[in-house]
Amino acid sequence: MNPRATIADIAKALNVTPATVSRALNDHPGISQETKKAVRKVAEKLQYKRNKIASSLRSGRSHMIGVIIPSAAINFFGEVVHGIEAMANTYGYTVLLYQSNELPDYERKGIEAFVSAGVDGVLASLAKGTVDFGHYLDLKRHNVPLVFFDRVNDELGIPSVVVDDFRGAYTATEHLIGQGYRRIGHIAGQQHLKIFKDRLAGYKAALEASGLPVEEKLIYQGDVSIESGRRAVRHFLELPERPDAIFAVEDYTALGAMKELKERKIQIPEEMGVVGFANEVFGEHISPGLSSIDQQPAQMGKEAFKLLLEMMEPRKEAVVALDQKRVTLAPIAFFRQSSARNGEGA
Amino acid sequence: MNPRATIADIAKALNVTPATVSRALNDHPGISQETKKAVRKVAEKLQYKRNKIASSLRSGRSHMIGVIIPSAAINFFGEVVHGIEAMANTYGYTVLLYQSNELPDYERKGIEAFVSAGVDGVLASLAKGTVDFGHYLDLKRHNVPLVFFDRVNDELGIPSVVVDDFRGAYTATEHLIGQGYRRIGHIAGQQHLKIFKDRLAGYKAALEASGLPVEEKLIYQGDVSIESGRRAVRHFLELPERPDAIFAVEDYTALGAMKELKERKIQIPEEMGVVGFANEVFGEHISPGLSSIDQQPAQMGKEAFKLLLEMMEPRKEAVVALDQKRVTLAPIAFFRQSSARNGEGA
Repeated sequence: MNPRATIADIAKALNVTPATVSRALNDHPGISQETKKAVRKVAEKLQYKRNKIASSLRSGRSHMIGVIIPSAAINFFGEVVHGIEAMANTYGYTVLLYQSNELPDYERKGIEAFVSAGVDGVLASLAKGTVDFGHYLDLKRHNVPLVFFDRVNDELGIPSVVVDDFRGAYTATEHLIGQGYRRIGHIAGQQHLKIFKDRLAGYKAALEASGLPVEEKLIYQGDVSIESGRRAVRHFLELPERPDAIFAVEDYTALGAMKELKERKIQIPEEMGVVGFANEVFGEHISPGLSSIDQQPAQMGKEAFKLLLEMMEPRKEAVVALDQKRVTLAPIAFFRQSSARNGEGA
Repeated sequence: MNPRATIADIAKALNVTPATVSRALNDHPGISQETKKAVRKVAEKLQYKRNKIASSLRSGRSHMIGVIIPSAAINFFGEVVHGIEAMANTYGYTVLLYQSNELPDYERKGIEAFVSAGVDGVLASLAKGTVDFGHYLDLKRHNVPLVFFDRVNDELGIPSVVVDDFRGAYTATEHLIGQGYRRIGHIAGQQHLKIFKDRLAGYKAALEASGLPVEEKLIYQGDVSIESGRRAVRHFLELPERPDAIFAVEDYTALGAMKELKERKIQIPEEMGVVGFANEVFGEHISPGLSSIDQQPAQMGKEAFKLLLEMMEPRKEAVVALDQKRVTLAPIAFFRQSSARNGEGA
């Protein structure tokens, strides 16, 4: 006797399709009572054990959630996913992933695939290019629980988990000022994304708080890439008065800036300080080590799953309207050699 | 009139559940003819456009595939997934991902989730710990097309795509010999995984071909981690005759070795040459740049999808039995500073 008898085995024994067996076991109205009886009899004989998925089909719950991330290659999102998985596993949920590759079209396809797959809820971080939110509103209309994390949109009434980007950028800029830098440039990200807008605002606020001027020509509009870091440095070096430090909107941009500076033999941190954002893994391995702002990604993933769980399995004690729910995590500074003009780097 | 009418809109208009509407549109036997007629009428009135997913449900195809990877944080797998996505997109398939996190239990859950989600096929790379293949054999028994890539098992009769690991390791070791290194240590990976076994064999063969002895104490059994690279260096340095070069089974192990060597002020490549395997992104950003063997991950992803497509949509001209199908890609050497004792690094 096979201890791992499957639906396929039962189907073979009865000369019907596996789909028929599955439907019969789930008491599907399209299957005759006669067939159901026969299937149950063979299932018993073969000691077939229904798996959790089969029983959750019956309950109308799949215990699967879908997670949309811009790219798994960005370490930050990988860490968020680990946080989601850790929490989801505790509550018996399986996590399916989908990469939008920063393309709104792919993002829409991912949402459709998750709906088709029958997930109980969706966690999503927006692609850089997403400006039409129809596919997310569709989820909401279909009552599929949805929570945004990191890259969110505030105007859709969807619960979200973010890090305090303003505060992170403020801390980074303040640190550069504390190290004696006085002309601090910023390489910005796309301004239709709130996280990048908030970082620019935090940079400006820190300058103002120290009585330093905010100069538009020291703000370079990048697109969150190694290449835009390089372009920004070329722009900064052509200015009559070049900056003595750079706060980059994220670490890959900072990496590009560092590569360009190194090629031009400009000493980091002596001649130019650099701070990034996101605390990507490579930052501690490059030379000099890259100062950055950690966004507590694993914690972000856990909080996002907890919000989603409240929507998927509402408990009576939940009194706060989820439409207004937002979790904000505190950023953590990791200052290394790239900004240590006063020798305080780790 | 709403140009984006959904199933939910139709359900609302008829005061039935969205599930009923969906089933009615898919001509489900459990829905009465009367309801079907009513649904179709409202759908027409609202100019409801069925999406691809709805029509594929009807055809019994989801046009989704599932991809099991050990970890999205390993850049190599991220690149393979990009290759899969590029090809899948061309053929109208959507790609769902699942991370096993190297745990066989998670891997099994992922397979179950993909089956439950109704994917048309599965691509998988084995977790380090997987020694029981029951969940993969289940897929095969259920006639769900399955192709292995990179971390494969040869004994299950499942088509696969691999890089020529033996040749890659042979090339890496030969290169170190060519740079004048004479006592070359190897930090190995788990030997129940064929790829790591093949790399060890390639290392030995290259030594033998150059008339160098294979010494067991120069082979350190690691577990594919930064930490095992560090441990291996500590082991090597305690030997009466320490090695003058290290060929690590993969780049994170090599990174750990380099970190330990640097902390002990041992010059790379002058006193100790280092070569890794996989050409992870960080390798070109660290100092010195890490020599490595590229596995053509994007190409691997494309070939894996093509094999799967042949199984999902068999064409008449396919004459080769897929059970025996295996695609082997050639490794490409990227030699940088970490092994350039003769000054030939890039």
